[in-house]
Amino acid sequence: MGISLAELARRCQAELRGDPGRIIERVATLERAGPADIAFVVDARHRAQLSDTSAGAVILHARDAGLFTGNMLLSQNPRLCYARVAAILHPEAKPAAGIHATAVIDPGAVVDGSATIGACVVIEAGARIGTNVVIGAGSYIGSEAVLGAGTRLHPHVYVGSRCRLGMSCIVHAGAVIGSDGFGFAQEAERWEKIPQFGRVVIGNDVEIGANTAIDRGAIGDTLIGRGVKLDNLIHIAHNVEIGEDTAIAACVGIAGSTRIGRRCTIAGQAGIVGHIEITDDVHITGATVVSHTIREPGTYSSGAPLETYQSWLKNAVRMRQLDDMARRLKKLEQKLSMFSEGGKVE
Amino acid sequence: MGISLAELARRCQAELRGDPGRIIERVATLERAGPADIAFVVDARHRAQLSDTSAGAVILHARDAGLFTGNMLLSQNPRLCYARVAAILHPEAKPAAGIHATAVIDPGAVVDGSATIGACVVIEAGARIGTNVVIGAGSYIGSEAVLGAGTRLHPHVYVGSRCRLGMSCIVHAGAVIGSDGFGFAQEAERWEKIPQFGRVVIGNDVEIGANTAIDRGAIGDTLIGRGVKLDNLIHIAHNVEIGEDTAIAACVGIAGSTRIGRRCTIAGQAGIVGHIEITDDVHITGATVVSHTIREPGTYSSGAPLETYQSWLKNAVRMRQLDDMARRLKKLEQKLSMFSEGGKVE
Amino acid sequence: MGISLAELARRCQAELRGDPGRIIERVATLERAGPADIAFVVDARHRAQLSDTSAGAVILHARDAGLFTGNMLLSQNPRLCYARVAAILHPEAKPAAGIHATAVIDPGAVVDGSATIGACVVIEAGARIGTNVVIGAGSYIGSEAVLGAGTRLHPHVYVGSRCRLGMSCIVHAGAVIGSDGFGFAQEAERWEKIPQFGRVVIGNDVEIGANTAIDRGAIGDTLIGRGVKLDNLIHIAHNVEIGEDTAIAACVGIAGSTRIGRRCTIAGQAGIVGHIEITDDVHITGATVVSHTIREPGTYSSGAPLETYQSWLKNAVRMRQLDDMARRLKKLEQKLSMFSEGGKVE
Repeated sequence: MGISLAELARRCQAELRGDPGRIIERVATLERAGPADIAFVVDARHRAQLSDTSAGAVILHARDAGLFTGNMLLSQNPRLCYARVAAILHPEAKPAAGIHATAVIDPGAVVDGSATIGACVVIEAGARIGTNVVIGAGSYIGSEAVLGAGTRLHPHVYVGSRCRLGMSCIVHAGAVIGSDGFGFAQEAERWEKIPQFGRVVIGNDVEIGANTAIDRGAIGDTLIGRGVKLDNLIHIAHNVEIGEDTAIAACVGIAGSTRIGRRCTIAGQAGIVGHIEITDDVHITGATVVSHTIREPGTYSSGAPLETYQSWLKNAVRMRQLDDMARRLKKLEQKLSMFSEGGKVE
Repeated sequence: MGISLAELARRCQAELRGDPGRIIERVATLERAGPADIAFVVDARHRAQLSDTSAGAVILHARDAGLFTGNMLLSQNPRLCYARVAAILHPEAKPAAGIHATAVIDPGAVVDGSATIGACVVIEAGARIGTNVVIGAGSYIGSEAVLGAGTRLHPHVYVGSRCRLGMSCIVHAGAVIGSDGFGFAQEAERWEKIPQFGRVVIGNDVEIGANTAIDRGAIGDTLIGRGVKLDNLIHIAHNVEIGEDTAIAACVGIAGSTRIGRRCTIAGQAGIVGHIEITDDVHITGATVVSHTIREPGTYSSGAPLETYQSWLKNAVRMRQLDDMARRLKKLEQKLSMFSEGGKVE
Repeated sequence: MGISLAELARRCQAELRGDPGRIIERVATLERAGPADIAFVVDARHRAQLSDTSAGAVILHARDAGLFTGNMLLSQNPRLCYARVAAILHPEAKPAAGIHATAVIDPGAVVDGSATIGACVVIEAGARIGTNVVIGAGSYIGSEAVLGAGTRLHPHVYVGSRCRLGMSCIVHAGAVIGSDGFGFAQEAERWEKIPQFGRVVIGNDVEIGANTAIDRGAIGDTLIGRGVKLDNLIHIAHNVEIGEDTAIAACVGIAGSTRIGRRCTIAGQAGIVGHIEITDDVHITGATVVSHTIREPGTYSSGAPLETYQSWLKNAVRMRQLDDMARRLKKLEQKLSMFSEGGKVE
């Protein structure tokens, strides 16, 4: 097995320097790579390791070509080149099509003959499973849910009734798509449930991480645009809308009815309040709380900096005195400016 | 199908204005509603949309009656009226009673004949499943666990041994009720597990969100009071107690042995330390860290405000200097007051 | 049943005072304990309850022996002594070995005859399940995954292909071990998946909480050292390394490639950015954001303090003005020092 460097270069549209016949079997890090491995350089740390590598070939940015004397694939986007090389050398095992004997499929569901349905999967009436879909063991597909062609659910995924996933989506274990939104009316001191009968509608090429939960809309739908990437343990509340190609890291929570634009990035543990809008091309740093609408593209942050506990104890208590400090500062400025004027008069 | 406006008014105890015979088939937003739809107005944004709606009827607060000329249901609590209208028009599909052929039920479990047990459900010895309970596919009910009448578990729910849910609870996919608490004793540098053999005891009318985890008590029980509403991805540690009618939004974490009162609301991503008490009627805003006991009802917050990254970089570094700034401010005040006194003397 | 106090003392290496023949049946809190119960004292609150307890025996620190007149077990580490007594009196039910009829085990998997495989468990080809392993109902073991002797998975656990758990691990319901890391290359505005084919490799005596997710490495492995304890709803990204005996509380997120040392403790909701190192014996307080490498052992914090909402509104707005305030403070100091000099000159 293995693939020649020439073939890799051709399929990844990279420029080859060195031995076109070198056979590459796998990708590896620069430190661990041997003569049948291809490694990659995307940052300064990698560049420093180049001189010591035993890799059979290396993927480099074209401008770094001078840093290495061995076989190389040059690319304007070495990370992308690496992604493609890795996908060629390490193709994901595609299970054989077919329905496992223990799967429970309602006669009213439509499952394409090319689909792979794992053990103990449950598919309810009216669900439609497209061509080449893979549904991992123990997953649940609610009534009238739709999975587009080529979509892959890992084991233990839940897709609620009437929810729709586009084509070529990937959903990791434990993800819940289409739980009820958190909607209640108050009567006296008690909460009464507001029925949640919207859907989750997900575009093509969306990836959803492990144990992430996406609530269905209350009336309308929760919308996840094409190409959106969601990491693990994310909460997306009812009627949220996320624009195309936005990427959201782990542990983020997004409250109800908020609309996030296209090409945004939201780093881990950020929290976004409900009923606001975030425009396209906004970047939110880690653990930031987004408390209001953002109309201007750019990078936004909140939060206090790391320090030793001893130092933090002294500083944190002052945060409660900040308004008082600001007022006292202002007063001092006024007093001093009176002095100065007094001084000039003399 | 559909229901006359007169009938809806009667069943929801709303005041009807307009055509009592108008047949309503579903709820919809003001923007999308057509002549067979009923919409609702609960905020200023809705009021602004009233003039353009094609809704067959609208639910309004009684004081807003003058804003609309079409058919309406008037209520002192339009959100509650909406919740009830929606529940009537969009009743949740109740699966037929019975035990799926693939369910694995220990002979020592007691399952009421009116219960619905989904595919691949596992119920251990000694568990008791009440009347009209629905257990979704793939859920697990541990030994001697008890589910009260009318409780509904969505698919993929875990209920640990001896845990108890009251009547009319709703539990969403992926929720874990009765995992071990995080309790360890230290011996030299190693952690030794402290057995966790308490239970989770949940009152009536509790709702639990997707992928939320509630640990069993270490010795005593973790207690969730009647009417408590928990959103998705919440962590509730061992021996926590949550009072009746408290609502907790997504991504909140509550550490061990903390007691939260009745009618509290805790917004998303808040964190609550262990071994404290929060009295009744306390409201915690989003992402707030509750570090100590709260004895007074009211609203509490913590956290830094959103700003641009550039601005945040400059301000955050100053947070580490706050104590120093406070001391310097104090010194300036003292210096200036000496000057002032000096000035007076002159 | 029950065990004599003498026997408990012997097995837990505690010093017995009082009646060696007293039969103890269970552990209980000081408040609830009766004559057949043993209670424990590990903090001041417990010491205050000692005079009122009806416990048949009490576990105490040796230095507290004078506080109680009844039967007691004295230990230098009463918490550890309690953990051991509880484990003796409340042994976890060990299900009978064997493979449930509904389990789906690939003929290419190797399952030790002493293992217990629950209902609806799925085990893929090449997996190896060690002696005395227990796999709870509905769990999934991917191809070529390895579970070491004595490891126990609660129901609904996911272990991805080729991942390895050591001996005597405990994994709680809903945990996901070996989901894909969040790795993408960007091409124009779109994200292209970087294949994730590393593993998760977990040492002996590791405990993993409910609904926690651990991503597999991108190329190399994600490493969880011996004795690590992970609470619920934790996110561990690809290629993270966690040193031995480190304990991490619920809702923590750790971004990719970060290395955490040995014997660290990380409190709930902390967030740790990617590509940094945290040395041994570091303690992170709750909700702290760790934004950079920590080279010195010690305790570290970040975050703003709890206050009333009204007070917070006034203070939080000042956080955005902090840099301005710091500059104005500096200016005042300069001005005043010029005045002082001026004063001296006169």
